[in-house]
Amino acid sequence: MENQRFVIGLDYGSDSARAVVVDVRTGEIVATSVKYYPRWNKGLYCDPAANRYRQHPLDYIEVLEASVREALAQAPAGTAERVIGIAFDTTGSTPAFTDAAGVPLALTPEFAEDPNAMFILWKDHTAVGEAAEINEKSHSWATDYTAFEGGIYSSEWFWAKALHVLREDIRVRECAYSIVEHCDWMAALLTGVHRSDDIVRSRCAAGHKAMWHERWGGLPSEEFLASLDPLLAGFRERLFEKTETAEKSVGKLCPEWAARLGLSTEVVVAGSAFDCHMGAVGAGVKPHTFVRVIGTSTCDIMVADPKEIGDNLIRGICGQVDGSVLPGLVGLEAGQSAFGDIYAWFKRVLEFPLHEIVAKSELLDDETKARLIAESCDRIIPALTAAAEKIPAAASCLLATDLMNGRRTPDADQRLTGTIAGITLGTSAPMIYRALVEATAFGSRAIVERFRAEHVRIDEVIGIGGIALKSPFVMQMLSDVLNMPIKVCNTDQACALGAAMFAATAAGAYASVEEAQAAMNSGFAKEYRPRPEQVAVYDELYKKYLALVAFSEQQVH
Amino acid sequence: MENQRFVIGLDYGSDSARAVVVDVRTGEIVATSVKYYPRWNKGLYCDPAANRYRQHPLDYIEVLEASVREALAQAPAGTAERVIGIAFDTTGSTPAFTDAAGVPLALTPEFAEDPNAMFILWKDHTAVGEAAEINEKSHSWATDYTAFEGGIYSSEWFWAKALHVLREDIRVRECAYSIVEHCDWMAALLTGVHRSDDIVRSRCAAGHKAMWHERWGGLPSEEFLASLDPLLAGFRERLFEKTETAEKSVGKLCPEWAARLGLSTEVVVAGSAFDCHMGAVGAGVKPHTFVRVIGTSTCDIMVADPKEIGDNLIRGICGQVDGSVLPGLVGLEAGQSAFGDIYAWFKRVLEFPLHEIVAKSELLDDETKARLIAESCDRIIPALTAAAEKIPAAASCLLATDLMNGRRTPDADQRLTGTIAGITLGTSAPMIYRALVEATAFGSRAIVERFRAEHVRIDEVIGIGGIALKSPFVMQMLSDVLNMPIKVCNTDQACALGAAMFAATAAGAYASVEEAQAAMNSGFAKEYRPRPEQVAVYDELYKKYLALVAFSEQQVH
Repeated sequence: MENQRFVIGLDYGSDSARAVVVDVRTGEIVATSVKYYPRWNKGLYCDPAANRYRQHPLDYIEVLEASVREALAQAPAGTAERVIGIAFDTTGSTPAFTDAAGVPLALTPEFAEDPNAMFILWKDHTAVGEAAEINEKSHSWATDYTAFEGGIYSSEWFWAKALHVLREDIRVRECAYSIVEHCDWMAALLTGVHRSDDIVRSRCAAGHKAMWHERWGGLPSEEFLASLDPLLAGFRERLFEKTETAEKSVGKLCPEWAARLGLSTEVVVAGSAFDCHMGAVGAGVKPHTFVRVIGTSTCDIMVADPKEIGDNLIRGICGQVDGSVLPGLVGLEAGQSAFGDIYAWFKRVLEFPLHEIVAKSELLDDETKARLIAESCDRIIPALTAAAEKIPAAASCLLATDLMNGRRTPDADQRLTGTIAGITLGTSAPMIYRALVEATAFGSRAIVERFRAEHVRIDEVIGIGGIALKSPFVMQMLSDVLNMPIKVCNTDQACALGAAMFAATAAGAYASVEEAQAAMNSGFAKEYRPRPEQVAVYDELYKKYLALVAFSEQQVH
Repeated sequence: MENQRFVIGLDYGSDSARAVVVDVRTGEIVATSVKYYPRWNKGLYCDPAANRYRQHPLDYIEVLEASVREALAQAPAGTAERVIGIAFDTTGSTPAFTDAAGVPLALTPEFAEDPNAMFILWKDHTAVGEAAEINEKSHSWATDYTAFEGGIYSSEWFWAKALHVLREDIRVRECAYSIVEHCDWMAALLTGVHRSDDIVRSRCAAGHKAMWHERWGGLPSEEFLASLDPLLAGFRERLFEKTETAEKSVGKLCPEWAARLGLSTEVVVAGSAFDCHMGAVGAGVKPHTFVRVIGTSTCDIMVADPKEIGDNLIRGICGQVDGSVLPGLVGLEAGQSAFGDIYAWFKRVLEFPLHEIVAKSELLDDETKARLIAESCDRIIPALTAAAEKIPAAASCLLATDLMNGRRTPDADQRLTGTIAGITLGTSAPMIYRALVEATAFGSRAIVERFRAEHVRIDEVIGIGGIALKSPFVMQMLSDVLNMPIKVCNTDQACALGAAMFAATAAGAYASVEEAQAAMNSGFAKEYRPRPEQVAVYDELYKKYLALVAFSEQQVH
């Protein structure tokens, strides 16, 4: 143990945060603690019907302390003293308004219960109108500030959300000094920053979501922002001009947080980034490797040599930002708006007889009914999978798209909807499930093909996330449809492991993040290889998928 | 009772036959008996995987005797002596090969177990290849014999089935003298016909299914048939040149059958026709009234004044035959390949968790499981209906087609398949059910619009069949989508009642079928009226339905 050093990676997801304690030399995860956000899990401050999703900064603080302390308690004695670095990844764009001290307004007494003073979670869609205004204005402005964000600004992002809240909440408007992304605030909090102007800003968050780019000297011009709405005037200069990549130290633990976490004030706090970006690093991203976080939706990350990309604007992806993933390389983000969510949708449809009929049956007592229904719901996807695996590819003309939640990449369009075609009276539930799995694989292929069309070479795929680890049927199909090997990481904590790599680099244990990746990676649990006879079948089906997508596009235009 | 006279209407469906005893003066049904085909219901002689469906003539004979005897036993004493006529409607095209005596080969000992010697049920699709050959040959022949059958000959019809069996079964080929339609054979049987050449041939069956037309002197030419395949050579002259409409007597009960049925040899046997055609008469068909038999599929019947239609060939329907429904008027047939079958398909999809998961649960004993599953399956459609009724029209962008079993009318194309579009992650089972009901209504509208485009005026709709009587949700939707009132007959035995009207006319109780209709109709149980605000919504949705259908057509061409 004497020579052992540890880092802590903190991964803040949508519902919970994970702290992992990682051996700096080997990357071994020696302890993990997962804590759910207490207020969020009570449904506070949210209105799903209005697509409003807010998170209280106290949730973030409480789970930070609880998860780090629990993880350290699980680790061997003496671990805490050997921790040399800590780093955060979070969801994003998840911004909050702050006062001049950089404190999110919801942490001040008068705003303690105001959702507009809290963090606006990535999936909050209240700012649809503002996003449309930003797109319109930017596309007609001398400089198109959306250029490095795929050309389409989303309601999920920084400026749209900020403008929406400023318009809606006069009290926030009067008291807001600046705006902070969740990931940046975590590092500022731990390093004891007391001025908004001193907060180190993540290249990842700023570049992918706030239209920050060196080409136009940072954030969009004051003139542009003020012409969008005078309410935005003045924010630019109180925000930032500079951004930093995440392998750099932003400071050391302040005494207060060192005490609260049981760590020393010598612990280095690294820069921050979004979860999928650090997850890609944790999974082993490198040029020509396509890393996918596959869950309810997908977040797809690549890195490219700037010499290879040059000044090319890659059409229809979610942003290209120098250093957003690995320093010195251009980080490219893409993704499918729904992946596992599509399987979950079909599961919900099939649950109808359970919830609406079995639940009302007089043949069973209430307790038995509840158990039967819960057990049956849990078994739907496994039963569908078992049956779908037995159906040969292209055994019928059934074909689906994956547009049930619109489309993120390629070419974002939230108006698109899903289609199931080729239905006959013999079409069964497992056949539909199989078609939906194929559809998500075809949607993945459309992203790969877009990258390739834009001269980004892809040689292999690495999968992380719940579906990558748990669904061999889906992953094999994906390998067949993409005609590429897919490796699956040997950890379900790739994002937190990636954060740990940044912590180790920032603390000086490695000269570069790539060195940390080489030493600290989890290895792969499994590799799927494309089956040639399936590849040929799916090549044909993919053409039909594209025709079905084109029809859907035609319907909304 | 003294002045009362009765007729018997016999309706032979796909699974069972019904005998009704009807008061000639009032149309009151005084007794009904339903008997299922015993061999058919054991699955004998059929191969669903190969779409082979055959019925043994003994099934028809046994249910005839049993149903008539049971119905008469239920009727007031003295009824049998007062029966003056009997008439048949059957499914069709349901042909069988006969010997020179007009006996279906399966009634001779050596063919008793040969499916190729039995009646080939309307839905048998073994002759797909032969139908394609007939279409190709006819469309390039000097005379296009498919002209009065909508231009497309079906594998469900007379010549395709005959040719298929001749090619497949050398024994049948060697022994077959002629071919008889089920409906014609029933009347021949009861009137004691002993020569094939003496069988009276139904205008309805011959005109709609055997390409019989006065314009070319009856059946297609010997040259045409022999050039299709020499195996067909010689059949034409052993078949028939003349056909008869069904209100004419074909003879009286022969002594044998009078005895078997407990009736007198004075009972007149009327001509025969297909079930939907006689059903339309029973329902009150007249010019400009669109009668629909709405069940698993629909059969739609109209009659038009020949002076109005002239020599017009109506594109894409299932035939136009002078006198096939009412003498002196042109009978027009159309229909949807699937209607209630589409709802049943979705029900089967939703049954997946019941049959595949609940059935395997260890929480319940086998008997409780079986009861719960049976009860739950039965409640799916009612539960879907209750929930779907609460969803406003066009509340979402969900849209379906009704092509899950291909398309019969307009423009038959069995290659077409069904589509569900506009799916979002919020799409529920009741929303899908509602979209499927809308789709079946839109498919109905496409038929109506085709008739109108071909200058056939439609003023109102009459519905008969299971769905017409049992599904107010579906019927109201249909009225809204068609923007026409829909009357529903006050009987579930409209086909048998129609047969009774023909029996009464043939027996001389009425001077015309129209007079019989006026006196013997059942009246209407209900009338649905279009709701103007819904009509407007569906006018818009219908355009989108047509676009979705056009996309499906494009995919198969």
